[in-house]
Amino acid sequence: MDINTLKKLLESVASGNVTVDEAVTNLKHLPYENLSYARVDHHRSLRKGFPEVIFGQHKTAEHILGITKAIAEKGDTVMITRLSAEKAGLIKTQYPGAVYHDEARILVYEQTPPAKKTTGLILVVAAGTSDIPVAQEAVVTARTIGHFVETLYDVGVSGIHRLLDHEELLTKASVFVVVAGMEGTLPSVVGGLVDKPVIAVPTSVGYGASFGGIAALLAMLNSCASNVTVVNIDNGFGAGYVAALINSLAKT
Amino acid sequence: MDINTLKKLLESVASGNVTVDEAVTNLKHLPYENLSYARVDHHRSLRKGFPEVIFGQHKTAEHILGITKAIAEKGDTVMITRLSAEKAGLIKTQYPGAVYHDEARILVYEQTPPAKKTTGLILVVAAGTSDIPVAQEAVVTARTIGHFVETLYDVGVSGIHRLLDHEELLTKASVFVVVAGMEGTLPSVVGGLVDKPVIAVPTSVGYGASFGGIAALLAMLNSCASNVTVVNIDNGFGAGYVAALINSLAKT
Amino acid sequence: MDINTLKKLLESVASGNVTVDEAVTNLKHLPYENLSYARVDHHRSLRKGFPEVIFGQHKTAEHILGITKAIAEKGDTVMITRLSAEKAGLIKTQYPGAVYHDEARILVYEQTPPAKKTTGLILVVAAGTSDIPVAQEAVVTARTIGHFVETLYDVGVSGIHRLLDHEELLTKASVFVVVAGMEGTLPSVVGGLVDKPVIAVPTSVGYGASFGGIAALLAMLNSCASNVTVVNIDNGFGAGYVAALINSLAKT
Amino acid sequence: MDINTLKKLLESVASGNVTVDEAVTNLKHLPYENLSYARVDHHRSLRKGFPEVIFGQHKTAEHILGITKAIAEKGDTVMITRLSAEKAGLIKTQYPGAVYHDEARILVYEQTPPAKKTTGLILVVAAGTSDIPVAQEAVVTARTIGHFVETLYDVGVSGIHRLLDHEELLTKASVFVVVAGMEGTLPSVVGGLVDKPVIAVPTSVGYGASFGGIAALLAMLNSCASNVTVVNIDNGFGAGYVAALINSLAKT
Amino acid sequence: MDINTLKKLLESVASGNVTVDEAVTNLKHLPYENLSYARVDHHRSLRKGFPEVIFGQHKTAEHILGITKAIAEKGDTVMITRLSAEKAGLIKTQYPGAVYHDEARILVYEQTPPAKKTTGLILVVAAGTSDIPVAQEAVVTARTIGHFVETLYDVGVSGIHRLLDHEELLTKASVFVVVAGMEGTLPSVVGGLVDKPVIAVPTSVGYGASFGGIAALLAMLNSCASNVTVVNIDNGFGAGYVAALINSLAKT
Amino acid sequence: MDINTLKKLLESVASGNVTVDEAVTNLKHLPYENLSYARVDHHRSLRKGFPEVIFGQHKTAEHILGITKAIAEKGDTVMITRLSAEKAGLIKTQYPGAVYHDEARILVYEQTPPAKKTTGLILVVAAGTSDIPVAQEAVVTARTIGHFVETLYDVGVSGIHRLLDHEELLTKASVFVVVAGMEGTLPSVVGGLVDKPVIAVPTSVGYGASFGGIAALLAMLNSCASNVTVVNIDNGFGAGYVAALINSLAKT
Amino acid sequence: MDINTLKKLLESVASGNVTVDEAVTNLKHLPYENLSYARVDHHRSLRKGFPEVIFGQHKTAEHILGITKAIAEKGDTVMITRLSAEKAGLIKTQYPGAVYHDEARILVYEQTPPAKKTTGLILVVAAGTSDIPVAQEAVVTARTIGHFVETLYDVGVSGIHRLLDHEELLTKASVFVVVAGMEGTLPSVVGGLVDKPVIAVPTSVGYGASFGGIAALLAMLNSCASNVTVVNIDNGFGAGYVAALINSLAKT
Amino acid sequence: MDINTLKKLLESVASGNVTVDEAVTNLKHLPYENLSYARVDHHRSLRKGFPEVIFGQHKTAEHILGITKAIAEKGDTVMITRLSAEKAGLIKTQYPGAVYHDEARILVYEQTPPAKKTTGLILVVAAGTSDIPVAQEAVVTARTIGHFVETLYDVGVSGIHRLLDHEELLTKASVFVVVAGMEGTLPSVVGGLVDKPVIAVPTSVGYGASFGGIAALLAMLNSCASNVTVVNIDNGFGAGYVAALINSLAKT
Repeated sequence: MDINTLKKLLESVASGNVTVDEAVTNLKHLPYENLSYARVDHHRSLRKGFPEVIFGQHKTAEHILGITKAIAEKGDTVMITRLSAEKAGLIKTQYPGAVYHDEARILVYEQTPPAKKTTGLILVVAAGTSDIPVAQEAVVTARTIGHFVETLYDVGVSGIHRLLDHEELLTKASVFVVVAGMEGTLPSVVGGLVDKPVIAVPTSVGYGASFGGIAALLAMLNSCASNVTVVNIDNGFGAGYVAALINSLAKT
Repeated sequence: MDINTLKKLLESVASGNVTVDEAVTNLKHLPYENLSYARVDHHRSLRKGFPEVIFGQHKTAEHILGITKAIAEKGDTVMITRLSAEKAGLIKTQYPGAVYHDEARILVYEQTPPAKKTTGLILVVAAGTSDIPVAQEAVVTARTIGHFVETLYDVGVSGIHRLLDHEELLTKASVFVVVAGMEGTLPSVVGGLVDKPVIAVPTSVGYGASFGGIAALLAMLNSCASNVTVVNIDNGFGAGYVAALINSLAKT
Repeated sequence: MDINTLKKLLESVASGNVTVDEAVTNLKHLPYENLSYARVDHHRSLRKGFPEVIFGQHKTAEHILGITKAIAEKGDTVMITRLSAEKAGLIKTQYPGAVYHDEARILVYEQTPPAKKTTGLILVVAAGTSDIPVAQEAVVTARTIGHFVETLYDVGVSGIHRLLDHEELLTKASVFVVVAGMEGTLPSVVGGLVDKPVIAVPTSVGYGASFGGIAALLAMLNSCASNVTVVNIDNGFGAGYVAALINSLAKT
Repeated sequence: MDINTLKKLLESVASGNVTVDEAVTNLKHLPYENLSYARVDHHRSLRKGFPEVIFGQHKTAEHILGITKAIAEKGDTVMITRLSAEKAGLIKTQYPGAVYHDEARILVYEQTPPAKKTTGLILVVAAGTSDIPVAQEAVVTARTIGHFVETLYDVGVSGIHRLLDHEELLTKASVFVVVAGMEGTLPSVVGGLVDKPVIAVPTSVGYGASFGGIAALLAMLNSCASNVTVVNIDNGFGAGYVAALINSLAKT
Repeated sequence: MDINTLKKLLESVASGNVTVDEAVTNLKHLPYENLSYARVDHHRSLRKGFPEVIFGQHKTAEHILGITKAIAEKGDTVMITRLSAEKAGLIKTQYPGAVYHDEARILVYEQTPPAKKTTGLILVVAAGTSDIPVAQEAVVTARTIGHFVETLYDVGVSGIHRLLDHEELLTKASVFVVVAGMEGTLPSVVGGLVDKPVIAVPTSVGYGASFGGIAALLAMLNSCASNVTVVNIDNGFGAGYVAALINSLAKT
Repeated sequence: MDINTLKKLLESVASGNVTVDEAVTNLKHLPYENLSYARVDHHRSLRKGFPEVIFGQHKTAEHILGITKAIAEKGDTVMITRLSAEKAGLIKTQYPGAVYHDEARILVYEQTPPAKKTTGLILVVAAGTSDIPVAQEAVVTARTIGHFVETLYDVGVSGIHRLLDHEELLTKASVFVVVAGMEGTLPSVVGGLVDKPVIAVPTSVGYGASFGGIAALLAMLNSCASNVTVVNIDNGFGAGYVAALINSLAKT
Repeated sequence: MDINTLKKLLESVASGNVTVDEAVTNLKHLPYENLSYARVDHHRSLRKGFPEVIFGQHKTAEHILGITKAIAEKGDTVMITRLSAEKAGLIKTQYPGAVYHDEARILVYEQTPPAKKTTGLILVVAAGTSDIPVAQEAVVTARTIGHFVETLYDVGVSGIHRLLDHEELLTKASVFVVVAGMEGTLPSVVGGLVDKPVIAVPTSVGYGASFGGIAALLAMLNSCASNVTVVNIDNGFGAGYVAALINSLAKT
Repeated sequence: MDINTLKKLLESVASGNVTVDEAVTNLKHLPYENLSYARVDHHRSLRKGFPEVIFGQHKTAEHILGITKAIAEKGDTVMITRLSAEKAGLIKTQYPGAVYHDEARILVYEQTPPAKKTTGLILVVAAGTSDIPVAQEAVVTARTIGHFVETLYDVGVSGIHRLLDHEELLTKASVFVVVAGMEGTLPSVVGGLVDKPVIAVPTSVGYGASFGGIAALLAMLNSCASNVTVVNIDNGFGAGYVAALINSLAKT
């Protein structure tokens, strides 16, 4: 339930279209609904600005479906990350309107599209083609919340001119998500070129001494560029979410 | 050289108070000045929004003094982090107007105070009293750049009510810096209570299996709150800097 | 062989229903029975308060069945942890009365149900729905030993109010098992709210820098709450076992 | 402020010896007192069973003295862990009645000695003579809270008969703290001999591949004895505190 | 080619049964035979006391068969470790006399059985039933070289009496191989009971913080018993080989 | 596009066989071609001495085919590393002239064979037969660039005479690639014997405490031979590439 | 108390020079003497072949002196390892006959020199001059127990001919201690040259990625030579002790 | 003894100025001289191209002086790395002609300056001013061997234009040494710009998650630029030495 839905509900009460009892019924799920295996937080969109997002990786299809149903019934947008294509297919048999972004591995079921934010641009940059799935996780997340996102892919530092050619795009964005595996260098370079916040996402792309993304993670944490913060390895969702939060600030 | 200084220079050229040749002399240091041991980046404040900050930890007093002189002569604000009290004393004999924040270990030499930003509030939260020096590094950094900062200290999760009592303050801020050592839990708890970006700073406070801050760092990277990003262990400066960048967005 | 079984045997000897030779035969397996691949410790329930528990993970079905038989023949309760559904099926063909708890992956074959302890309550708390299997391992273990157990699931710190709403339940329990993956924060928060022992169980739930549970483990070891002790990653059994031992103290 | 102190205050109000206003003044510090650098939690002894303990390691002498004063003025027992002899000397000049346990590095200032608990025995076992300081931290902590504690030192597993000779003592205790560095084996051996909870404390004693206590910590986390839980490296205080909590259960 | 084979060859030359040219042909492979993918070291049994042992894990069936043929043609004993049952089946179709020890995963093809050494006893001790495959690797290795080996299995430290009951066997052996996973404690306990060399073998048995055998490895390296040395995780072969070398010393 | 191709193009322009417009069309892809998922760097062979090499491991067959086509159309040599046999088969259906080196897992599609360099010899040395695939990756890489390469395999340090027997070959080479897993010792020994650069390649061959190649990597980084540098675990390609670069220096 | 001392005591009883009561008094300290901070194990030389050795590193001078006195009074040899020169000086004021080996940091106080063993030779090999102190710890230990020891120093693998020149010495020894820091290669090379047990000792000599000896430790654990076992980093004492145990086997 | 010295000796023999016996005396030190604590390898300059270099860090002043004397007496150049200013002072009292490079911490005592190589240029690049001492170690090493070296300092990636401004210098060099701490990004960026070998040197400059240089080391090992190889953390000497070896190739 987001603020607009709440306002509409209260206006309906005011105008007599909804009785007080009906409103109470609708609101009484506060603060959350107990599914025994999960407590769905319906007021999160009031408190946090976006409905609860379902982390699909370790959950059974049944649990995911149950939580989806609980959220969908309140009219909220359902967003499920790290969802396999197979489980997504199951959800879509129940919710045909849901869209599965297969590279990003995110399913989105929107009953009302978000009002497009009138704020700045989020630029998602990826070092190599193998980093694109994580980058897309950030892209889909931020767009689902209602933000404008552009992308700049395969601009790793071993060919620094590929990046420098897009200086104009770099100056247009108000917040950056920079995704890189292997040596994880790109966020430092981007961070040195721009004067906006850069959210660095290490990926597990690499082999040997990349140690599943540790090398990239450490490089980003030690960035000599002061405008870089870091999220967990492969956490494209978190980066997209924070980028949206930051970008939202610009409008107030 | 920040934008105001540049504008004034150009206006002086326009009004005839400064000749074109003098202006050229002043600008020709672009892009940086070579001190042989360091290249001072005078146009950084144009490109990045704040003059180059000196990382004092591994540098000799002589090098620091040389870089300070190069920056100060351009009229820019000098800010030196991780500076020992002893070296700070040396700088102050040359620049009596400099202020040394001993808990934060930052020296600031401001020739013109920054125009106070008309944007939102930065709230810096620290878990324990031992985390305060790192928190203060963030506070001094953000204030030097011109932002409003409030603090909330000693509100670690082992007494969660200490934090919950300040709900009003939590809703007032537009960006958070949350500092914690040991198990590094506080950013997740704060992140769950607010709908704004949270920059988590792990500290090296702890012993045994804290491994110099690794435990806190990992906890923060794995935060189940989606609005948390992380900086390096004890990197209060970086957190304060990014918080200021984010907070600056609010004004445009 | 637990104390009650022993007493009954001796009373039978006293009453003439069992001859001394028969009793000797029954007791002579002391201190253990050698199956060549395993030494079954039949007097463990005397010495340790509960019969030997079989760790099923690395054992072949044949070995498990052999040990099961040796324990069952003495009349003791058989409990097998980390048992796959497939191997459990094999055991149940031989022991149809056995119960397989599939979420907990524990098989229990009880010939005589344990006398319910008249002691306090064990509360098992889990941060996320993905942590439930490990939590259930603790629940089934403690219940099999004869203790009252309640559960509180999906109350992770990113929505702290979910936990705080159950303050009453928190004050009722005499010992806590708190299960969490990812950043492993929940035991510290629970530990700060209660004045009873808290056994923290890190789980391998997470990705990237959770490193298979290391992040959660370190967070728990560094807990700023003084009443927290820790067991191995995913060791729900150990946590349930110690909780039962602690809870047993309350009755003497 | 513990329960007895609170009761006395209220009885004094009832009998007219204390006015309501005075009582309010005394109670209004709830929930804690803000010293700016620390929030002293005076109601902790109500909520947690023992007043707040001061972790002395990273704090300045001035901060420690300030917190000590705030606690002492409420009549509570002051306990400071990881306190250097030098800082302890400073505290004692202000509080001559304070006792400094130098091996344990704990200072205790008791205004009213605790009523001795009528519960069972805590046995603290240490593997080598170098582990004794950590063991003593547990001993002093548990005794200060009011428990009976016995010790068994230098009984490491390389001479297992030293331990087995004390079988009687092992059966008398209701909870164990077992302290060991190097290979950290002792808790598993003790755990196999007794049917009570064992709190294992790894120490940083060792060299080379002991990695400052990691080897001992891992050995304890992987204990094949089911009754072992673990605290942080060198955390004698935590072990003693939990042992006291567990031992307290026995009385109710 | 071992010393006996060499002697026989030379005696045959002396007696005229083998011509000098034939002997030269047989000896000219010195120092090794080049199979392009492997250099088979036929004189190793002269230099090292036993023919070259084939490490089967990373090699293709074709390579293994080629090396086997090269060794077998010289009349030497072929021993292949870490060999899957499937590849062993392939070898046995060519060498029906070969014996595959499936628990130890070793194939032995002996053309002449080794003269039994008249030296002392090697005792192989294993902590749990899951450690038996690694222990058997040591057993088969030492027996193939010609030594007497006894075993003592499932005597882990959580039931120390199981071990102490075999004191007589412990005094009979002249060298020990002690195999343990999880917390890796058993070698220290055995080492404290005997005055002979103990070779400790950590196994990868365990879960969570056992980290694939690291916990056991570290415990063994930090053993407080002075007579313990360590081999790689799961390296039963190396332990059996060194035990044989040590035991061989006893005869000279 | 390499230098020769460029020269020919310009000569064709000079001779009128290619119009200026056609040349412009051909050159205008500078600096790279955007395939949306990858930016192919056609001028890399001018800038870097060899066309862009495709890292096949994390890419889909479709992406690989697309990049292959873009490179092949410019007349450049296509080289794809870490390519599975299955994907290689797909490429070969489109480019029948391509050669797949299955041990090295490299596919090469050469439209014009490289002029053989007239420089010195590259010697690739491998410790064990299991290290050969990584060694072959270096061999195929250097040969594809046009260098003479010889190999010396199965000469690990446990039989040091195998290596010393090839002293002549060791003195002939101008640069060495030395590949080893397990303890990673061979580069130090080779480095001590020769006065040329040695590129050490750790492999993931081993088990237990080899930690997937970390042991070998650390040994090589700590080499006491001063002429050793190191590449990533299993990075035969990088070693072969740098060896070719170094060997190329000899000719100028 | 070693076997000879015991025999003499019993012979004295037999001959009437010592009364039974006196003998009982002398023997009744069995199994050990309790110094409150340490339990001295006087019968260790019977059970383990050598009196208890004192690990001096973490002990106070007072404790060391107390244990020394308890051992010396029984007529046993006192050996203290990891003893600083300063503490050694204190011991020598009480026991002027004690000898302090400063490179090895061992103090030995022998009341009766050991009968020289008539067994084989122990060869202690060290890679670099910086490894000599650890090597000397092994040398002094083995000599104090009564063994013949020779040394071969500064023969690291970067100059392999230095080692190969001593082939004769290598064939003479019956057991080897090989000490190396940095890449820790030497034990593998020595192990490949000889057919006797090799005890590898990693040292903390090195910098950067030697990680205080971890690189050398891992190299040794992964040795491709089958006759290598390993002790803790810098544990020269343990290596010398086990070498003596192995060498002792040769005589029986 | 280098090749020129050897030739002169032989020419002197040929001309009768040196008798055969004198020449034998001079040559008989082959292959090395035994100082008991060190074996000085006088023929190394023949075999390896430069006299033995002394690693000064772990050696006593006495040992260093002894080795210096042994080398100097043969007329060879003495080079001592990681030498403290204090020990350097001692050496200079004996060898006043020695030069101590204090930033590089190298002492060089040259009796005959090396003939300047007629080969290409070595360019040493450093990311930050704190990395300069390690860079200078490379510079002094390569210059002492006789190479031309230029430097480019303080050109870290957070201000990438500082590096790009020196494109001309980048194209002039035939081999690069690139030194960086913190996130260790610079070698990848330089590697992407040039077509020559790049030797990457991680430094221990940084704090927190730089882990003493591990972050930089991992970034370099995972470099996406194919022309990068890596040496140990802070190993400026090794990088300079290999750069000289590579640069030497250019002349033949």
